[in-house]
Order: sequence, then structure tokens, then C-alpha cells
Amino acid sequence: MPTAETAAALLAELQARQPLVQCLTNAVVTNFTANVLLAVGASAAMTDLPLEAGPFAAIASGVLVNLGTPHTAQRDAMREAVAAAKAAGTPWVLDPVAIGTLPVRTALAAELLLQRPTVIRGNPSEIIALAGVGVGGRGVDSVDSAEDALAAGRLLAVEFGSVVAISGPIDIVTDGVTDVRVHTGTPLLTRVTGGGCALGAVMAAFAALSDDRLASTVAATVVYTIAAEQAAADAAGPGSFAVAFLDRLANLTAETVLTLAVIR
Amino acid sequence: MPTAETAAALLAELQARQPLVQCLTNAVVTNFTANVLLAVGASAAMTDLPLEAGPFAAIASGVLVNLGTPHTAQRDAMREAVAAAKAAGTPWVLDPVAIGTLPVRTALAAELLLQRPTVIRGNPSEIIALAGVGVGGRGVDSVDSAEDALAAGRLLAVEFGSVVAISGPIDIVTDGVTDVRVHTGTPLLTRVTGGGCALGAVMAAFAALSDDRLASTVAATVVYTIAAEQAAADAAGPGSFAVAFLDRLANLTAETVLTLAVIR
Amino acid sequence: MPTAETAAALLAELQARQPLVQCLTNAVVTNFTANVLLAVGASAAMTDLPLEAGPFAAIASGVLVNLGTPHTAQRDAMREAVAAAKAAGTPWVLDPVAIGTLPVRTALAAELLLQRPTVIRGNPSEIIALAGVGVGGRGVDSVDSAEDALAAGRLLAVEFGSVVAISGPIDIVTDGVTDVRVHTGTPLLTRVTGGGCALGAVMAAFAALSDDRLASTVAATVVYTIAAEQAAADAAGPGSFAVAFLDRLANLTAETVLTLAVIR
Repeated sequence: MPTAETAAALLAELQARQPLVQCLTNAVVTNFTANVLLAVGASAAMTDLPLEAGPFAAIASGVLVNLGTPHTAQRDAMREAVAAAKAAGTPWVLDPVAIGTLPVRTALAAELLLQRPTVIRGNPSEIIALAGVGVGGRGVDSVDSAEDALAAGRLLAVEFGSVVAISGPIDIVTDGVTDVRVHTGTPLLTRVTGGGCALGAVMAAFAALSDDRLASTVAATVVYTIAAEQAAADAAGPGSFAVAFLDRLANLTAETVLTLAVIR
Repeated sequence: MPTAETAAALLAELQARQPLVQCLTNAVVTNFTANVLLAVGASAAMTDLPLEAGPFAAIASGVLVNLGTPHTAQRDAMREAVAAAKAAGTPWVLDPVAIGTLPVRTALAAELLLQRPTVIRGNPSEIIALAGVGVGGRGVDSVDSAEDALAAGRLLAVEFGSVVAISGPIDIVTDGVTDVRVHTGTPLLTRVTGGGCALGAVMAAFAALSDDRLASTVAATVVYTIAAEQAAADAAGPGSFAVAFLDRLANLTAETVLTLAVIR
Repeated sequence: MPTAETAAALLAELQARQPLVQCLTNAVVTNFTANVLLAVGASAAMTDLPLEAGPFAAIASGVLVNLGTPHTAQRDAMREAVAAAKAAGTPWVLDPVAIGTLPVRTALAAELLLQRPTVIRGNPSEIIALAGVGVGGRGVDSVDSAEDALAAGRLLAVEFGSVVAISGPIDIVTDGVTDVRVHTGTPLLTRVTGGGCALGAVMAAFAALSDDRLASTVAATVVYTIAAEQAAADAAGPGSFAVAFLDRLANLTAETVLTLAVIR
């Protein structure tokens, strides 16, 4: 079972090693995602061109594939990057944004799922929809908490060998056997676009640090939500929250993680 | 004639109903536009892929079509979204960014105009250029105030059944018969990229709430410019203005709108 | 040799003339780049469509070509814009982001270099890689300071008639004969995505003001790094730094430039 100690140690290691994360992500959140990676202490590159995405994934420390705005060329680049990441043993994170009824991204998610993502990250509806696509589960119309999607998450984890992270007021990370709940966070993360998407990039950064991807994914979630909780205390609204969040991420120490983490 | 009472009531309704706004907008302002929508209390989705934009428009509460960087695939997605919005009775806003001499967007604006936008939003030069494209009006080289474009705006409103919003130090909204002037605002909105573009998205959110699109477009303008005026009072420059603007939008209440609105 | 007096005078002229800068830049930094241009007092347009980029470059005051995410259509637009800029005598800046091993952008950089950029801006690795592509120089694996790339920068300047700006803790600007070192700045510029990219846009704005492109490029660097140094003093981290940087740019005066510039 991952602990606050593991999360704190992994943050210290990230700050020392500065893993390079390649992001193939949606047009809305590229800037915020890059700034989150830089703030937490990683390096960021948004290389998502065909013919370049593959070679870059071979040298990156981790790769994020986010399906928020998957235009034609970016889809080709995603296929390249995933193939190269797998060949190189590079961990990669799949974020199946808004899949379910939208046809282009849903088909792409189904295809990429077969490549066995290191980590899958989504909100409860997305995890349920992905399980429906991948293992014949059934979707529901609306879900409120990560608990509602836990069965679907466990199915995905077992079937594809992935660690699955489900966001919500309490985040859950599961490898299909062990479920870890992270209790830190703030609703303001849902009032800033990219609040979830950027977490996927941070999970790719932490996955570069340890072969224990349950622990690394929990650590990413703990670090991210502690900084967010601290930022919410300083904020007058979503504008000042986003600014304070970057500041808090950049100033977060292993000691603070040890003190504030609430993992169960 | 729309009143402060109407604007205040529509803001309360928006906060309660959280309309889902689909934005097909330019690459420069996607992030800011999504954050403005979230701050004001709406939901945002930037679905602008061919094959997805149409299905999404059928379920969205309102659609924004902004011509700032209309690449080939996005143009196809815009056509899909507009056709689906019309079929579903979903209100849609056209923002003809920088049309006039640039050939790709000017031709696209002419084409989309024939689909009778629910709302047209632009600066004075854009409104005059659009009237030139659509109804044979003549452009002018430079215009300073919304008054200079009012005749063109009225022409567009009458010819295409649209409500037309013209931005300037004093914004004017017209349906071709009634002209409404909104006196709140700040020049700092022109020192932040997307200051006008994001207002188009807010107009799409408000249009989802009422069939009186003159009233809804005035309400969007009033809410937006009051929050901007409040933010300007807090700001040391355009950076802190953009942050405070999101905070002020998120904290704005119907009561404050009632107190601060200046509509004539 | 450019002086603080020249830099101060050019800032005053920029604020008076508000040059229009066309940016063909990467998807990650479009928003920040536009906001930096507006803050410093320029106008910004991100017109990067084929068929529009050329006509726009003919009327722009300066053009930025940044190779950070050069998708197919944008590459065509870049070729158009550069050809039109050259035909019109418009200054243009080449920023060869991350060239070296990535094949698409490296080939494009080699092609555009033959068009003799007015200004070339990059970090030391990029300048060395570009010299390798353009004049048969040899790359090195890692470089820490602008001094390490100065020989490569001078080669490029002489061969292509460009002013070359190399970023680092101390920035160097060279025309191949005179080397100018700018000592202001802050490491926080490297903790915000686009910290270098947006400087390229500001160089395009200043290049519009004077035929002495060594002086204009030095002035852009001085203005940018002074505002950054001021912002760093106010900042609690990279989030508040980026906000304060825009505020400081917008409030910077010629008098302050004269006082704070350190040029050697």
C-alpha cells in the first residue's frame, strides 16, 4: 500500500531528476499543462507531429496521450508515440477525455487501450465509458463520485495491466487488486480548464521515477491535490487559484507532502 | 427594452442551469474562453473535430463559431456544428474575427451568414466588413466606436434575423429595431487577448436561457463588462486584470448586477 | 555599440507606434505570446493559415516564425509569410525551437535559413544546431551558457546577414562583428512555458522600429529581461511571476529602462 512517505520520496526524486514528459494533448490545455510540469519540477515538450512524435517518445521519460481534441495529424502522432514508448519501455498515460458517444475519440481510445497503457486517468464517466468500450461494461448516464466507477476501473486494470486513476472529490487509484483513496483536493480544480488534464501529465512524470506505478500514480495525485488544496486557501476565485496552484506546486517540499497527505 | 432586472435574473438562471457551450474558436484564446465560461457558471467543451462537432452541437445548449484561426478541418467542423445547431434549434453565435481582406475567413463568414446566426458579435470594423460581405454595404478604413458600425449592425440584424453586438467603449446590441447601449467596461479588456472572443462564448451561454436574444445578449454584455470593470479596479496591469476578471466573474451575483448595470 | 539610451528610446517609440506583429508560432505559447505583445504595447495577430499568412505578412510590421509545433498547414503558411515579408521588406524572426534531431522542424529550419532571417533567436543548443545545419558546424551534447554558442551565432550572422540572439543567464546578441551582452533577467523565465518564445515576438516588434537590427534586438532583450527581473522580485513562484511579468511590461517606461539596463 503506497504511503505518504513514498509520495514524499518520489517528489524529492522528481525535483532531482527532472523527468522529460512528452505531451500529446488537447489544444485547450497545452499551456497550462506545460506550466504545471515546469512548476512541479519536470521538463515538458509538446511534440505531437507525425514523424517527430515517435522519435521523441523514444527519448522522453514519460508520455501523455490526452484525447481532448484529437485532430487527424495528432491521432497519427499518438499512434507513433505509443508504439515508440512501448518499444523503449517508456511509461505512458492515456486520458480518454469525453469518450463514450463522440465517435472519433471513442474509436481511438479503443485502439490505444489495446496497447496497454501504463496508466489510465479519467473522471468517473470516462472510466465507465472506457470499460464499456474495452471490456463490454455498461455506461451510466451520470456518476458523481469515483466510487461509482471503481468496478469499471478495476476491470480495466486487470484486463490491460494498467494502473487506473479515477478523479472525484476523493480520488481513487487502483491496480485491480489494491484501491488507494487520496483525500486531499479542492472543487476549484473543476473550475479551471485542464485541472484534470494536467494531472495526467504529472502522472507521466512520476511514472518515469519508479516501476511501482501504483505508488507513482498515487504520489502524483497526492502532490497535485495538496498543492491545489493549499492554493484554494489563498484564492479569491478560479483566476487567482490557477496562479497560486502553480506557485504552490513549485514550492512544495517532500516535508510538506509528508505532513499533509491523506491516503487510505 | 432589456433592463438591469432582466440581466440579473438571467445571471441567476445561468448559475442554476449551467448551460453547456460548445466553442469552435481560435487557437489563441481557447484556454481563456473555457476559463471564462467556467468562471461565469457555464460548462465548456471545445469540440471542433469533423464528425464530432455536429453530434456535439445537437446536445450543446449553445454554440460559438469564432473565425480567428479557421484551419481546414475546423472549417468543416464549423459547417457541421452550424447545421446541427440549426436542426436542433440550438442558438449559435458568429464572431467574424478580422474578416474583410483575409480571403479564407471572409468567404467562410459570408457562407455562415446565410445560415442566419442567432447572434453576431464583433468590433466595429468587423461588423461593417460583414455587412459589406452580406448586404453590399461598404467598409471604412478605421472606426473608433460602436456607433460608427450601428447602421451596418442594424442591416445585418434585419437581413439575417440576428441580434448584433458591436463592441467598443460603449457596447451596442441591436435587433435592427431596438438599440441597447451598455456603459460598463474597461479598456483593459483590449489589452488581454481574447477579451472580445470570450464574450462571444458568454453570449452563447446566455442565449441558451431565453428566446429573447436581445435581452440575453445584453445580459451577457452587462455581466461580462461589470466583472471587467470590477477587475480593473483591482488590477496593476493586464496580467493581474485577467486573473481578477475570472475571480470577479465567478463571484458576481444577481444583486451586484442590479446595482452596477448601466443600460440605456 | 547599442546603449541603454537606444533601448529606452526604442521602447518609447514602440509604445507610440504600436507595431503589428504577425506570429506563426507553436500551439503551447500562442496565448502568452499575444498577451506579451499587447502588454509591451504592440499589436498581435496570430494569422497562420495558408492563403492568409502571405497577404497578412505584407501588411504586418514584423513577423515571427517559431518552429515549436510546425504542423503541415502551418509550415505552408510559414513559407508564404516569409516570402511575403521578404518581398515587402518586413523584418522577420526565426526561432528554431528544438531543432537538431527532430526531422520535420530541422529540415524546415534549414530551408527557412536560406531566406536570410532578419533575426535568429534561440537557446545555445538551438543556435549550435542551426549553425550545424546551415554552415556545417558541429553540435555539442550540452551547453550551459550563451558564450558556448557564440562562435556558432557569429557564423550564422555572417553567413546569412542575420542578427543572432542567444538566450542564457546572460543573453548575447551578435551581428557577427559586435557582440552585446545583456545582464538583466531571471531564471523564472525558464520556469514559464513560452518565456523564450515570446521574446522572439518582441524582437519582431522592435525590428519594425529601426533598420539597426542589432540595436533593436538588444532593446527587445533589455526591455523583456528588465520587466522579468522586476516581476521576479514580486513573485512567489512561476504562476505569480507570469502575471507580474505582464503587468511590469505594460508599466515599463523609457526612464526605467535607462536606469536598470545593464548592457556590455
